[in-house]
Amino acid sequence: MAGGGWARAVRGLLLDVSGVLYDSGADGGVPIAGSAEAVRRIKASGLKLQLCTNETQATRADFVRKLRNLGFDVSVAEVTAPAPAACHLLRERGLRPHLLVHHDLVPEFAEIDKTNPNCVVLGDAAENFTYANLNEAFRLLIGMEKPVLISLGQGRYYKETDGLKLDVGAYMKALEYACDVQAEVVGKPAKSFFESALAELGVPAEQAIMIGDDIVSDVGGAQRCGMRALQVRTGKYRPSDENHPLVKPDAYVNNLAEAVDIILQQQQL
Amino acid sequence: MAGGGWARAVRGLLLDVSGVLYDSGADGGVPIAGSAEAVRRIKASGLKLQLCTNETQATRADFVRKLRNLGFDVSVAEVTAPAPAACHLLRERGLRPHLLVHHDLVPEFAEIDKTNPNCVVLGDAAENFTYANLNEAFRLLIGMEKPVLISLGQGRYYKETDGLKLDVGAYMKALEYACDVQAEVVGKPAKSFFESALAELGVPAEQAIMIGDDIVSDVGGAQRCGMRALQVRTGKYRPSDENHPLVKPDAYVNNLAEAVDIILQQQQL
Repeated sequence: MAGGGWARAVRGLLLDVSGVLYDSGADGGVPIAGSAEAVRRIKASGLKLQLCTNETQATRADFVRKLRNLGFDVSVAEVTAPAPAACHLLRERGLRPHLLVHHDLVPEFAEIDKTNPNCVVLGDAAENFTYANLNEAFRLLIGMEKPVLISLGQGRYYKETDGLKLDVGAYMKALEYACDVQAEVVGKPAKSFFESALAELGVPAEQAIMIGDDIVSDVGGAQRCGMRALQVRTGKYRPSDENHPLVKPDAYVNNLAEAVDIILQQQQL
Repeated sequence: MAGGGWARAVRGLLLDVSGVLYDSGADGGVPIAGSAEAVRRIKASGLKLQLCTNETQATRADFVRKLRNLGFDVSVAEVTAPAPAACHLLRERGLRPHLLVHHDLVPEFAEIDKTNPNCVVLGDAAENFTYANLNEAFRLLIGMEKPVLISLGQGRYYKETDGLKLDVGAYMKALEYACDVQAEVVGKPAKSFFESALAELGVPAEQAIMIGDDIVSDVGGAQRCGMRALQVRTGKYRPSDENHPLVKPDAYVNNLAEAVDIILQQQQL
């Protein structure tokens, strides 16, 4: 983490949320020590900030409400999440989705025409991943002349307080195989998703830093877009990440607070 | 279908069941015209016969009972199916399975030690493919030092009277992706499965013919084992199969009855 001055030209930060700001859980989760204060210091410094998350179990409004309750000074406009990005894509291409998503995410698609579906949008549907619902999504896809499957992220699994859960990517693979299609992924690590986040941040890639706990999705994805990227040693970080065969962060930091210390220090030089 | 004399040296037949003997359905299914009589003619001719099926929604005993009710003169010993083959493999390798299979298949594993599982056996579990059951199988696999996933077939989907259903292969892909493992497939088109069927038939590959409705799993799989293979134009056969880029049957026949006509005719030459 020594030297480099990599943060001197930085004008904005993209932050992953789960594992960086807080650790999630059925109980609502717990803030990571120093992260709420770090967010305040970023804002006070004049640096721009945007949260870049693959969260699909709640609307942005509910998600922000939860984060505010945990002490984070953030607003809905400061969150880039897959569902709004998917709505943008659906409108742009005249797509009418059949939704297989979490109950709490459905309101994000309130304004979208869902009659006579010509695509399937798959999110982390959790309890909605029933045999009947998966067969229904499959039948709609296989019945389309050219099946369009849009997946909100492609995570393999995640940890909750009651244990590991299969994430949306596993169900995406099931439908891809059954229908012989390739899903379009909306969310990290898709390039277009990082580009939306940068557009909302209002800072070009070379002046932005992504900070996340996922070596592939956060760090690798951001670097492919021309950003610098830091990995925090919180959340799903594991020491073996530091030997990843393909992805090397621009720096490791113990947590978000340390990242902000270093960035603000370099800004003042 | 003209000439060739490909059936002259034949001493035994492997028959796929669903789509060749009968069309399956929640109501028990209906025999395909001429197939019951064709089975009787094969037996009367002195040719050996073995059913080679990926059926995993019933024990072999129940499956044979159903076929007998539909008019087919077959016995349990004449059925090669994935579950008994999997039991053989489990015993051979000292594997103790966690089962994610159809309720009606469970008795096939009655003699197998299932305590403290060190592998997962996945079948077409149908209604047992719940979110909770999939998470449970996933957690067991990801918790193993070297995850072993055994899949009873790898079908993409099948048709029932109430519509298309995702088959075991889709759920296999989900678990493969989540755990970063490759499943071992027991069933067609695995070479070892055809070899078991041939051993039970008691005829070497070059003197056996496989007859099936699935261009890839039945025809391609059998040919890779050195057998000749015919595709029937019943069951899941589609005209586009005749343009398959990789697999070419030794002959097409309209149905099992026609296949038996030709084979018996050539035997007499």
